[in-house]
Amino acid sequence: MIIVMKSSASEQDIETVIQDVEARGLKAHPIRGTERTVIAAVGEERIAGLNSLESCPGVDEVMSILAPYKLASREVQPEQSVVRAGSLTVGNGNIGVIAGPCSVESEEQLVSAAHAVKKAGASALRGGAFKPRTSPYSFQGMKEEGLKLLAEARDQTGLAIVTEVVSPGDAELVSEYADVLQIGARNMQNYRLLEAVGRSPRAVLLKRGPSATIDEWLLAAEYILDGGNPNVMLCERGIRTFETHTRFTLPLATVAYVQERTHLPVVIDPSHGTGHTALVPSMSRAAIAAGADGLIIEVHPDPGKALSDGYQSLNFEQFEETMAGCRKIASALDCTLGAE
Amino acid sequence: MIIVMKSSASEQDIETVIQDVEARGLKAHPIRGTERTVIAAVGEERIAGLNSLESCPGVDEVMSILAPYKLASREVQPEQSVVRAGSLTVGNGNIGVIAGPCSVESEEQLVSAAHAVKKAGASALRGGAFKPRTSPYSFQGMKEEGLKLLAEARDQTGLAIVTEVVSPGDAELVSEYADVLQIGARNMQNYRLLEAVGRSPRAVLLKRGPSATIDEWLLAAEYILDGGNPNVMLCERGIRTFETHTRFTLPLATVAYVQERTHLPVVIDPSHGTGHTALVPSMSRAAIAAGADGLIIEVHPDPGKALSDGYQSLNFEQFEETMAGCRKIASALDCTLGAE
Amino acid sequence: MIIVMKSSASEQDIETVIQDVEARGLKAHPIRGTERTVIAAVGEERIAGLNSLESCPGVDEVMSILAPYKLASREVQPEQSVVRAGSLTVGNGNIGVIAGPCSVESEEQLVSAAHAVKKAGASALRGGAFKPRTSPYSFQGMKEEGLKLLAEARDQTGLAIVTEVVSPGDAELVSEYADVLQIGARNMQNYRLLEAVGRSPRAVLLKRGPSATIDEWLLAAEYILDGGNPNVMLCERGIRTFETHTRFTLPLATVAYVQERTHLPVVIDPSHGTGHTALVPSMSRAAIAAGADGLIIEVHPDPGKALSDGYQSLNFEQFEETMAGCRKIASALDCTLGAE
Amino acid sequence: MIIVMKSSASEQDIETVIQDVEARGLKAHPIRGTERTVIAAVGEERIAGLNSLESCPGVDEVMSILAPYKLASREVQPEQSVVRAGSLTVGNGNIGVIAGPCSVESEEQLVSAAHAVKKAGASALRGGAFKPRTSPYSFQGMKEEGLKLLAEARDQTGLAIVTEVVSPGDAELVSEYADVLQIGARNMQNYRLLEAVGRSPRAVLLKRGPSATIDEWLLAAEYILDGGNPNVMLCERGIRTFETHTRFTLPLATVAYVQERTHLPVVIDPSHGTGHTALVPSMSRAAIAAGADGLIIEVHPDPGKALSDGYQSLNFEQFEETMAGCRKIASALDCTLGAE
Repeated sequence: MIIVMKSSASEQDIETVIQDVEARGLKAHPIRGTERTVIAAVGEERIAGLNSLESCPGVDEVMSILAPYKLASREVQPEQSVVRAGSLTVGNGNIGVIAGPCSVESEEQLVSAAHAVKKAGASALRGGAFKPRTSPYSFQGMKEEGLKLLAEARDQTGLAIVTEVVSPGDAELVSEYADVLQIGARNMQNYRLLEAVGRSPRAVLLKRGPSATIDEWLLAAEYILDGGNPNVMLCERGIRTFETHTRFTLPLATVAYVQERTHLPVVIDPSHGTGHTALVPSMSRAAIAAGADGLIIEVHPDPGKALSDGYQSLNFEQFEETMAGCRKIASALDCTLGAE
Repeated sequence: MIIVMKSSASEQDIETVIQDVEARGLKAHPIRGTERTVIAAVGEERIAGLNSLESCPGVDEVMSILAPYKLASREVQPEQSVVRAGSLTVGNGNIGVIAGPCSVESEEQLVSAAHAVKKAGASALRGGAFKPRTSPYSFQGMKEEGLKLLAEARDQTGLAIVTEVVSPGDAELVSEYADVLQIGARNMQNYRLLEAVGRSPRAVLLKRGPSATIDEWLLAAEYILDGGNPNVMLCERGIRTFETHTRFTLPLATVAYVQERTHLPVVIDPSHGTGHTALVPSMSRAAIAAGADGLIIEVHPDPGKALSDGYQSLNFEQFEETMAGCRKIASALDCTLGAE
Repeated sequence: MIIVMKSSASEQDIETVIQDVEARGLKAHPIRGTERTVIAAVGEERIAGLNSLESCPGVDEVMSILAPYKLASREVQPEQSVVRAGSLTVGNGNIGVIAGPCSVESEEQLVSAAHAVKKAGASALRGGAFKPRTSPYSFQGMKEEGLKLLAEARDQTGLAIVTEVVSPGDAELVSEYADVLQIGARNMQNYRLLEAVGRSPRAVLLKRGPSATIDEWLLAAEYILDGGNPNVMLCERGIRTFETHTRFTLPLATVAYVQERTHLPVVIDPSHGTGHTALVPSMSRAAIAAGADGLIIEVHPDPGKALSDGYQSLNFEQFEETMAGCRKIASALDCTLGAE
Repeated sequence: MIIVMKSSASEQDIETVIQDVEARGLKAHPIRGTERTVIAAVGEERIAGLNSLESCPGVDEVMSILAPYKLASREVQPEQSVVRAGSLTVGNGNIGVIAGPCSVESEEQLVSAAHAVKKAGASALRGGAFKPRTSPYSFQGMKEEGLKLLAEARDQTGLAIVTEVVSPGDAELVSEYADVLQIGARNMQNYRLLEAVGRSPRAVLLKRGPSATIDEWLLAAEYILDGGNPNVMLCERGIRTFETHTRFTLPLATVAYVQERTHLPVVIDPSHGTGHTALVPSMSRAAIAAGADGLIIEVHPDPGKALSDGYQSLNFEQFEETMAGCRKIASALDCTLGAE
């Protein structure tokens, strides 16, 4: 922790901060510059309320040095984690591909999508049964009935099932049917939910919140890891920026940055990350070239009629073409795409 | 709904969209411009999946015309709502002031804060018992014991209690102790939680998510209203932008914009909205000048020692001065501040 | 300057950085933590290329401690600067009000606006003669003819003239007619233009770029001050964020933050800062309550017919009402508004 | 143009808008919905001040339908433009690679970089002689002497020269030495400069401003095209967002989006787009996979000693490896990379 004093700070202010730092069990190293004094506080800086020092007289700013997460860090586990859940393998050169409709709408819709994405090379099936919808008037999902249809689609195709859980109370139920529990972007900081999936035996796909920093995202993963569940995949699905031609801005530099700091695999969601069908194929290819460990893509038999997210879904033909393009990139980089 | 066709759209594309719109029970009005055709779809546009039309051939963009919320709108209720909860009144010229520590830390801390904010003119006491913390290693709150301390502080001071609920399963318990349930920014789109507080008899303070649009925020309020709870206060607490000198950017233009569209009162949180003690007094005054219906301010007996948010908390003296400044502005605008 | 080493950095990496820092004339203080080493580099850190150290082996991050600007800082000049230009005084409790049309369109339009804003209490007249327009097909301004009309309006009303200069080659010409040279937001980092107005005898109103950090903005001011012109006013006119209900997001916390760091006065532009006529009155009041040293407001005889920015302009009656509201706030804070 | 009336708009308000629209030569089509009326205004909507209608009584919002640019659009020129400048070809499957130091610092530095990037397969040399620097105290470039060194590097290697022009008055001088004039991000809306390069016989690389919308960027290109210079390349170099782990956020979805709307080629700058050496290789590959027509990359003999931008520069070995990775991707997509 670096505590930057104001240039107007008195000797007394500096002394008070030093004592406060040492009272918390850290070692204080004051460094007196020509214009300002900074105090380096050495030791465990992940202490409750340490940044409250900023409100002390003479303090200008408190800057953290250490990453606030531990279990998720490369320092604790240097080698990359590989997450396996049924037919899905993600990490270490295996680029998992999760595809399927935004919402489970009917048996026919789901099963046809499952067969189509399997044929095109996907390694897992996505589909929402519990839907967190912006409006109370929107379709809210088929709930347990949807979970049953997902299980049926797995029976027919062998594809692992990825589906969202939106409430701590549902985590057990969803764990009975699903292979991977998805935490949606809006729930990334729903800590009771993170604790609940931390106790589940299923793998977790943790989406980044649209305004979450990388540290906040890795701390959300830390809640799950700390709860005892080591099978966490991170999913970048775009951040909210001033850009309006895409629904979110998909920052692919996240991939390399995060992979350097954490051992958890990183999955990219080009569907939410762009919000437009037409932009999904090129951003899928780009994600793989950027080094992503997986993709999650919305595919629907008839996007124009989808009850949710049709504007960003691929139809079966578009998904096949997208997979063909991705396969070229994966192959150029000596990676395996989907269920090859 | 306005559907903008591409300039390359064929007659067949246009015809297909028209039929699709009419099949959903809306009336289609095609308008053929010199470069493009647009189709105005008249009728109830809050229909599942209508924006999925964007994935149809020849469609460039689908633009909504109607606000997606109803119960929250001025069109359904033209006069402003006034929310009352014990000693707190918010709306119609009554500027409610909610003040107190970020977290309940101990009886002494809370009770001294309660007396101090009451003396300075606050109309309600805030304090977190269930804390949603970014890191699993941070102080997570005193939970039910904290709620009991809040109730005791109310007994001693008469101040209404505002406290956060973070999980649907806790809504009933918190409702037993609190006068106002706070939905934190990170839970603004935790829809199961919104439904739970929609069933509570307590008033709700709904914070805006740091990357939520105004429509998303009002739709979150709509979940609560639609659940049967009419006592909703909106709380702007800052959005996430590129600006780093403040922790969030507090957009006060929200006040007038939102007040024109909704009858719900708007409370401003200058503590989270700036993230720095030194900026709270001037932004409190500015909020009132902008027409806010209330303020929520973090106050702690000794901010430098606070277990959370000390960097943005006021001490008792700073809070008194802030209230004095705010009172001048409120008075100039013929409004009543806090418990006058 | 704090240089944070990676936890994987070798002793050799640390030694190399220390040598590099000392070779540049700074003193290096290595501080060895349990997880990482940080090196505090003490001395003049405003040196070309010092942050290039980040590309050296073992370096994770380079963090600045000192503000990068000098002449603009409170450390060099503790007392606030007051800028005076003809009828306009800005600073130290004098809230200057600059009002008038976005563009000079005709003699009648300009002169009627000048009389109206003077009558309502404005202290200076704004009006663009050289217009930087997003589209080459938009009205580009009346150029020198517009400057002559501005001079005429000054003759008739006594109001000081504020007008934009968009090219270094025009700075002398505009200085002949204007009392204050405005640098528009899009030109905030047009350094040749900043140098040109740094040589002018006229005061300068420097708008913040919509994505400029505070440091970048103050460094732009530093170019002008360093060029020999001490009469600089900063103007916050909103930043670009994900928020779309306003054209820009107006962060009033800028006022107190900047006033603590610089002696230059801060003017707020609620017209560009909101982009909507209806939001200008409340944000004008809020700006004053936040402590702004001045306002710049777009006023047009008939906004619906304006050749530019009509959507955010006030008509004469709206401006009068806005001034009445602002006067109440200014008076509550013992400040003088406009040409009182 | 779609004019959305408020639900409270009177018949008179609607009628007034219709008359105003028709007085400007457009045809008005009012469409009366159950809750609101919208008026479609058909005709040339790129008219001065049309959006000023928003300030008229009863008007809620004015939405544009047509793209505001023409010469840059695919509608005017359906086939992609290929820009050629000496050794550089950009577009139609030719991925141009522009590489070299941020600033020209010395003959040795520049010439060694030129030989190194040529050997690795670059098709052009970049290097700044006129530098727009955030701080007046930073190295400002070698100016004309730098241009001479660039010309010498071209003589020795045959590489086309790309260099920035920062002031309208310098455009002619720079055109004498350079093959491609670069407009930096900070000058994207410096319209006098755009006009100056519009008159130059040299090709132009137009960087996107860090908070510019796509429309604003294409309108900046329109200024150059409208000035008579058809050889414009667009360069995406990242936008400013809340994300701080990268200096800017590089939105690669821009590539496909822009290529659908304009015939101008799109070049990606992964150096500024990430701000960190370690992220440049993966984002270079991703850019090509996303369909970029070119890359511009900062390369320096010794980044740790660079006078500017060392933190995001590659050394020669890193550049060679980056090119090798890019070549694999380009080859998988049947494109030609650099000077193959």
